[in-house]
Amino acid sequence: MRYTRVSAGGRAVWGRVRERDVELLSGSPLEAMHGPSYDGGPGPTVIGTVPRADAVWLPPVVPPVFYAVGLNYPRHIAHCGAEVPTRPEVGYRANSALTGHGRPIVRPAGVEGRFEAEPELVAVIGRTLRHASYEEARAAVFGWTIGNDVSARDWQHRDRTLWRSKNSDTFKPMGPWIETDVDALAQTTTLRVNGEERAAFPTGDMVFDPYEYIVEITRHITVRPGDVLWMGAESTCRIEPGDTVDIEISGIGVLSNPVRTEGNSA
Amino acid sequence: MRYTRVSAGGRAVWGRVRERDVELLSGSPLEAMHGPSYDGGPGPTVIGTVPRADAVWLPPVVPPVFYAVGLNYPRHIAHCGAEVPTRPEVGYRANSALTGHGRPIVRPAGVEGRFEAEPELVAVIGRTLRHASYEEARAAVFGWTIGNDVSARDWQHRDRTLWRSKNSDTFKPMGPWIETDVDALAQTTTLRVNGEERAAFPTGDMVFDPYEYIVEITRHITVRPGDVLWMGAESTCRIEPGDTVDIEISGIGVLSNPVRTEGNSA
Repeated sequence: MRYTRVSAGGRAVWGRVRERDVELLSGSPLEAMHGPSYDGGPGPTVIGTVPRADAVWLPPVVPPVFYAVGLNYPRHIAHCGAEVPTRPEVGYRANSALTGHGRPIVRPAGVEGRFEAEPELVAVIGRTLRHASYEEARAAVFGWTIGNDVSARDWQHRDRTLWRSKNSDTFKPMGPWIETDVDALAQTTTLRVNGEERAAFPTGDMVFDPYEYIVEITRHITVRPGDVLWMGAESTCRIEPGDTVDIEISGIGVLSNPVRTEGNSA
Repeated sequence: MRYTRVSAGGRAVWGRVRERDVELLSGSPLEAMHGPSYDGGPGPTVIGTVPRADAVWLPPVVPPVFYAVGLNYPRHIAHCGAEVPTRPEVGYRANSALTGHGRPIVRPAGVEGRFEAEPELVAVIGRTLRHASYEEARAAVFGWTIGNDVSARDWQHRDRTLWRSKNSDTFKPMGPWIETDVDALAQTTTLRVNGEERAAFPTGDMVFDPYEYIVEITRHITVRPGDVLWMGAESTCRIEPGDTVDIEISGIGVLSNPVRTEGNSA
């Protein structure tokens, strides 16, 4: 099943994505299926539909906590000249940077140097979990979506933290939906700019898989339904205003965003 | 005025704190006063009261984004042997670590070495803001609360990020309420352990004040009602299971939390 959030009548509404339409739902499938008050019932009901072509896609979830993995693909780590992590450690990103499928990535006026896209698999947590075993971590993933960890490298190198280099407005496109029925680690991630392939790699070729991260996180921290875990990228590529960036993960979908300059709506 | 959130009938409810009671409110004063749909009306209405002595205090707000300042007090910077920042840069903390006034700070089983409290002033944003002037930043602060940036120093030094050293469950007590009528930068911050004063410093003796941070953040990022900005600490002190940690900021209140060991409810 594919779940997302769309804008309908000025409100954010959960939706179930069908071949031609998005069925609007009465509530969150996350809470209904995995929340503390789940009573085994059928979950949210359908309250309307919009044609897919007319849907205004929002980030498919606003996470209570937004986890992000840095160095997690051997080839990327070698490229950076970094050491292979011996433990699964996470960082954080900010919800203020999230934007939806189809919405512009805005390059801020002050950005100089490399401005890049990073194609990432995103795990969406469906259960409240602490001290999870590997099997419990597997069972706690509600589904999978796609993230673009847009990064301004000059700021990343000059600043003391990643605040603006990775969290400026629109720097975290996520979507288009959460796919619940896919073997995410057996897929291929492909990055295209203006339709031209710039990178392709096995989605699951990770140092630590998502479940190992969840086991480690939940040694100290309670994860909750809607939390997201961005899994890092093997390859990145430069993007420029005027480009359109597509990230495809087979079996999940395509996250597509145009790139704009700040102050320029064209 | 003092606003907070309390647990009532198993739900989180906004409240207005009076001398003897907490008035339960029909909605968020943040949204009513400063949200996009504010129509100039009177805001939320009173739907009940609980005696203050019986109140179960929650973090007074769950922030859309949780900003934290690291090095911001000249004496603390000198103590750390760090350089004085030339720009106001922020980091992030995770909402999963928040806990309320009166709730225990739990020292995880694996923590060795220094386990410390950091007493911090917290600015609560009340308006949606981008490209703010200093005066706009001033007008956008809804009120002030108190934070304890609990830190496990061994993990802080050994890990690649601050994930568990500063974001383990219960490591971010915040409260007891948001005070809207106080000149926060003219106050005194006092840290007590088991009633004994361990630190006291002028709350406003900062390298960059909260408004300067908001101006800098909003150059690149939209802040929203409920976002919090923790302002750093001048002094820290060790805490141990069995201790009670009080942080007082004059004109705001006292945030008090007992310290426990993981797996020990005593």
